[in-house]
Amino acid sequence: MQKIIIIGAGLCGTLLAIRLGQRGYNVQMYEKRGDMRKQGVEAGRSINLALSHRGLMALEQVGLAEAVKKYCIPMHGRQIHTLAGTTFDSPYSGRPQDYINSVSRSTLNIALLNAADEMDHVNIVFNHKCNGVHLDAGSANLTNIATGESFTDQGAIVIGTDGAGSAVRRSMMAQTTKLRFNYEQSFLEHGYKELTIPPGPNGTYRIEKNALHIWPRDEFMIIALPNLDGSFTVTMFHPYGGTYGLDNLNTKEKVAAFFKKFFPTLIPHTPDYLEDFFKNPTGTLGTIRCAPWQAYGRTLVMGDAAHAIVPFYGQGMNASFEDVRVFDDILGENEGDWKKIFMEFQAARIENAKAIGDLALDNFHEMQDKTNDAVFIKKRNVERQLEDQFPDYYSKYSLVTFQPKLPYAEAMARGRKQDEFLMELCAREENPDLEKVMEGIRALT
Amino acid sequence: MQKIIIIGAGLCGTLLAIRLGQRGYNVQMYEKRGDMRKQGVEAGRSINLALSHRGLMALEQVGLAEAVKKYCIPMHGRQIHTLAGTTFDSPYSGRPQDYINSVSRSTLNIALLNAADEMDHVNIVFNHKCNGVHLDAGSANLTNIATGESFTDQGAIVIGTDGAGSAVRRSMMAQTTKLRFNYEQSFLEHGYKELTIPPGPNGTYRIEKNALHIWPRDEFMIIALPNLDGSFTVTMFHPYGGTYGLDNLNTKEKVAAFFKKFFPTLIPHTPDYLEDFFKNPTGTLGTIRCAPWQAYGRTLVMGDAAHAIVPFYGQGMNASFEDVRVFDDILGENEGDWKKIFMEFQAARIENAKAIGDLALDNFHEMQDKTNDAVFIKKRNVERQLEDQFPDYYSKYSLVTFQPKLPYAEAMARGRKQDEFLMELCAREENPDLEKVMEGIRALT
Repeated sequence: MQKIIIIGAGLCGTLLAIRLGQRGYNVQMYEKRGDMRKQGVEAGRSINLALSHRGLMALEQVGLAEAVKKYCIPMHGRQIHTLAGTTFDSPYSGRPQDYINSVSRSTLNIALLNAADEMDHVNIVFNHKCNGVHLDAGSANLTNIATGESFTDQGAIVIGTDGAGSAVRRSMMAQTTKLRFNYEQSFLEHGYKELTIPPGPNGTYRIEKNALHIWPRDEFMIIALPNLDGSFTVTMFHPYGGTYGLDNLNTKEKVAAFFKKFFPTLIPHTPDYLEDFFKNPTGTLGTIRCAPWQAYGRTLVMGDAAHAIVPFYGQGMNASFEDVRVFDDILGENEGDWKKIFMEFQAARIENAKAIGDLALDNFHEMQDKTNDAVFIKKRNVERQLEDQFPDYYSKYSLVTFQPKLPYAEAMARGRKQDEFLMELCAREENPDLEKVMEGIRALT
Repeated sequence: MQKIIIIGAGLCGTLLAIRLGQRGYNVQMYEKRGDMRKQGVEAGRSINLALSHRGLMALEQVGLAEAVKKYCIPMHGRQIHTLAGTTFDSPYSGRPQDYINSVSRSTLNIALLNAADEMDHVNIVFNHKCNGVHLDAGSANLTNIATGESFTDQGAIVIGTDGAGSAVRRSMMAQTTKLRFNYEQSFLEHGYKELTIPPGPNGTYRIEKNALHIWPRDEFMIIALPNLDGSFTVTMFHPYGGTYGLDNLNTKEKVAAFFKKFFPTLIPHTPDYLEDFFKNPTGTLGTIRCAPWQAYGRTLVMGDAAHAIVPFYGQGMNASFEDVRVFDDILGENEGDWKKIFMEFQAARIENAKAIGDLALDNFHEMQDKTNDAVFIKKRNVERQLEDQFPDYYSKYSLVTFQPKLPYAEAMARGRKQDEFLMELCAREENPDLEKVMEGIRALT
């Protein structure tokens, strides 16, 4: 079978390697970082993720869904923490099987690496940096970071799953004019900073275990996701500018005063927040889009390398895993014709990647501004009742998160129409008649 | 006075150097290409340009407007060539002073280089490639292309006027995360190809001299601009794909058949079109946007390096020259504080650069699809009458092209509102009453 070079052994690349290995291809993977199974994980890099139906569907395809579920903590909805200190729940749906899963990035990546290592035809080499790809040749230039030695490896094709800072994509960018390479990178004026809620006594959870916690404060927001050991990973999404902005929160006094004012009920749960705040790096929040995703039928990018998104829909990893599933479906029907496979893959995915990128940006604003809003809360309640009573009703969130067979672009279009209709209705009517609401929604779609 | 390093001695950079030299700064310019006064100009690179009021206003600031006008051929409007072989005129405005000027890129650049050379404090070095800028240091690394020797030059600041492929901007891009550098490059699915209408007998013009000629054919378009020697530079704007696309026009037979079908009346004027078509390179048509334009108060990009646009409003050079004028105004009020100057310059220009980029894309569609359209032609006639009779009426085109004190963004907003109003009116009414139309427009703005 042909040799396939994969650059980047993160979540997307490793899942792809497993699937291609199952199909019998000879897979050679190169990863810039060291083997996380031996040397631990870099700090401050989004520690846990929300795995949901689309990601699970791709894991099922390779037979790993059940194994991965053992590392997952179900989150059935958002728990909102108000400034006044009260909390309330905002379930993701009325359906019990529709929940998302908090999972550790490194645990999941290690599970995938172990599965890939067990395959005869998959070889993973760590500490090798990709310097560039010969786009029309199916070969990549690499440097062994330990020895400094550089060499070129030749395959039938090269696939870049090397993330937002993709070296493979950079090789495409270097042929901008020839490929008419469209590219966009845009950053939010917010960054993120990770803090920790440690486990309670005897590994108990200090706050509700099975929820995604949110402390929405208009332009600031903190969230927390549970870990298996009883701790929570806390993420501040925070503007750089302004009085309380990251650029200005430059002393422990200022940070302490800020937390007392806006997050007083969180402080007892985060004993090390001041140390964490100054020790952990600030991450940026960017969206990356490009086209084409392929060059000459020999080079392809997928996952974050093709479409990095902001984390506010919890769909980054799910979208990348879905890439692998869709790629595999197309590969199955067109084996032998890489150009056709690459073109069809791009055609199938590019609008959907754009849609989930847009949805993630929308959700950034929704999570900040609206989780406290009376009409929005009422709309979520109406939606939950609709989901309880009408099997054919799915909120936008449910369409995106729990309907893996519906492409993101369609989920977005249908979801936005519904949202508009429901927000207007909830602003206008005190007690909407659910039957009539559902009739209206059916008429929309 | 401080030393300023300018990368790129094209139109924008040279004008900037002249102005900074007039202010007494020590200007050191580096240009990758050779001196066009000694070695001629690369072929196939947009030979002539439309200079209009905004560009002239900037040239006036340095005292060169009158000198440059000698090289200009006024174009009072578009002359449209229909497929049937008829022509009709579509003047740019009803006001005789409102015309645009066809000028040779190299002639204009040489005039600016000569003016810069005459200044004691401006030094221009050719054949020097910028490898990168130390963004926070005001220094640039350069390679002398002739000797291969590399060195670093230190100034107070570095300004990149090195065009769409800017090396200075690439240094900003390399600090993507630190600068949260937003960047976008997008290409049309059309390219361009230059052909020539040679002079007629005794340097006469084979077609109307004082017009911008257009042969609109829906998805194809050819334009021609006059040169001083009686020739015209002809530019095909043409899709890459499709039956008649550039990728498919790969034999002389196909090109000849294509021209016979769509541009039969042009063929007699372009005796060498088949040779030109295969000899000249195909140019891409791209838009580039980025933010920030400055880093650390030490490095700035302007002109195409900051905001390359497609050529369909004839405003690329004008926008770059306007950058220099606005920069100079801000410099005059804030001398000594580069960071403030750079920030204010960006704040003053970035929305306007976005607007002219959008307008140029709009005009691409207008020139292709609408110059043949009956309602559009009627609207242009109504507009010309309005411009004749009402001194306070300016079409969108006039606002953008002939009102240099009105920022592009305002011209766009006002122009779009008017266009919508007039198109609707012309679709509806046979003979609109001009007084009433003007009342309606005044009410809009």
